[in-house]
Amino acid sequence: MLIDHLSIIGVGLIGGSLARALRKAKLVGRITACNRSEVTLKKAVKLGVIDDYSLNISEAVKGADVIIIGTPLSVSEKILPEIANSISVNAVLTDVGSVKGGIVNKARETLAEKISNFVPGHPIAGTEKNGVEASIEDLFVGHRVILTPLKETSLKAHKLITQMWESVGAEVVDLDVEHHDEVLAATSHLPHMLAYALVDCLAGLQERDEIFKYAAGGFADFTRIASSSPDMWHDICFSNREQLVRTLEIFSTHINHIKKAIEKSESDELLKVFRRAKEARDRFNK
Amino acid sequence: MLIDHLSIIGVGLIGGSLARALRKAKLVGRITACNRSEVTLKKAVKLGVIDDYSLNISEAVKGADVIIIGTPLSVSEKILPEIANSISVNAVLTDVGSVKGGIVNKARETLAEKISNFVPGHPIAGTEKNGVEASIEDLFVGHRVILTPLKETSLKAHKLITQMWESVGAEVVDLDVEHHDEVLAATSHLPHMLAYALVDCLAGLQERDEIFKYAAGGFADFTRIASSSPDMWHDICFSNREQLVRTLEIFSTHINHIKKAIEKSESDELLKVFRRAKEARDRFNK
Repeated sequence: MLIDHLSIIGVGLIGGSLARALRKAKLVGRITACNRSEVTLKKAVKLGVIDDYSLNISEAVKGADVIIIGTPLSVSEKILPEIANSISVNAVLTDVGSVKGGIVNKARETLAEKISNFVPGHPIAGTEKNGVEASIEDLFVGHRVILTPLKETSLKAHKLITQMWESVGAEVVDLDVEHHDEVLAATSHLPHMLAYALVDCLAGLQERDEIFKYAAGGFADFTRIASSSPDMWHDICFSNREQLVRTLEIFSTHINHIKKAIEKSESDELLKVFRRAKEARDRFNK
Repeated sequence: MLIDHLSIIGVGLIGGSLARALRKAKLVGRITACNRSEVTLKKAVKLGVIDDYSLNISEAVKGADVIIIGTPLSVSEKILPEIANSISVNAVLTDVGSVKGGIVNKARETLAEKISNFVPGHPIAGTEKNGVEASIEDLFVGHRVILTPLKETSLKAHKLITQMWESVGAEVVDLDVEHHDEVLAATSHLPHMLAYALVDCLAGLQERDEIFKYAAGGFADFTRIASSSPDMWHDICFSNREQLVRTLEIFSTHINHIKKAIEKSESDELLKVFRRAKEARDRFNK
């Protein structure tokens, strides 16, 4: 058994899917969970995702070998001081947050010597759906999980979490904390802002009904991520504020450049931008 | 036979797919084509998409019952004066351009009394691929085709083109010319600009290799349209310049609003925008 006793704090899409996947792979003994809502916990038990639960977070982590923090970012940072004393000295702690800087800072403040058992993680998987009822056992198959181990992280803890993710079909890669937040601002956080801004912009136009009526397949693909959880993305924005604002500024200069080229009939410049983008996108596809 | 002799000017993805679809439905007799490149025309004959061709545009439209202009927008406007005298008095003319204002103005200038046989059209279908080799017979099945008939357009011509598109599986709707260009600026032209700007922006960052390496599924969906034809989109931008610039400006205020909310920690405002967008996107999905 890879993990005798697993504790999941926040049993939503990610936590629930990981529980299902580990269970399917017969790599976990008992799964305990904690959640703000007891309704969710009861649902998780009924769905067979977890074995038992406690509404008391200290109780929920007691005796667990591995603790996974699957809560929204703003909650995760508050949870660390609450569990710091309750988790076993040997318990390995990981999280699944989309931004790593904030939780790593908080962990350094609160975990003391237990910081060596903390392996920050971020599975690049998910859908625009949320909640334990959306969880599926093969969510991570073929997906990347980025770990951002710290200089304090023990090799043993790092190895266990790597093994856990690999055993559910994910490809694990390591990145620096800062580098992770920079890369994700560009590939994930910025696109989400654009999708939210676009849909909100169109929904505010006078012709909104027709606009959505005549939207084609490309539009559906392009805006799918605007259906993602507003609360989760709210937390991500503030958690990765600096990188995201910087990336938004770079984007703005690019879209303004395109706008000016159109206004000023700069035909060659516009073609140059489109060709450069197409080339990069085609390369990404391969 | 719905169309005894069809002439296609510009046999690419759209023209080629329509030819295949009409052929399959046994609704067309002879299909003649004209194209800038003879290589393409030979390929189209070999693929069975067309029967014959002429490099001389006047020859290619002579005697045709229906003429479809499937060339890029900038070419279409130049073609109209070239064919105005060669097309039969009863020949019905249509096009497939993504912007309608420019070609309609040109048609009014050049077609004289033959304007009554012009039915401007825009099939909302396509892929990021181009060329006759990418053409498929079911491209239009279940897709919308917008027609923008003019006050001069005869009922007979309008009916024939409606029937043609419906017979290949499309759902035909009518819109005003100006309204079409306004709606498409929002649902199609703006998203393409955002995708091009995003990919070009990321490709210019120092961490470009890692950025594309760690990009997830959402990113692939979001940027797919940046693989579209740069030349085609170049033409669309200039053809719909006024509407597109206006739409880009509205978008810019929205994305700046989000940026400022993040910078100034306006938590409620950010949540409000995200929730409003999610609600609109979820409604669109239904």
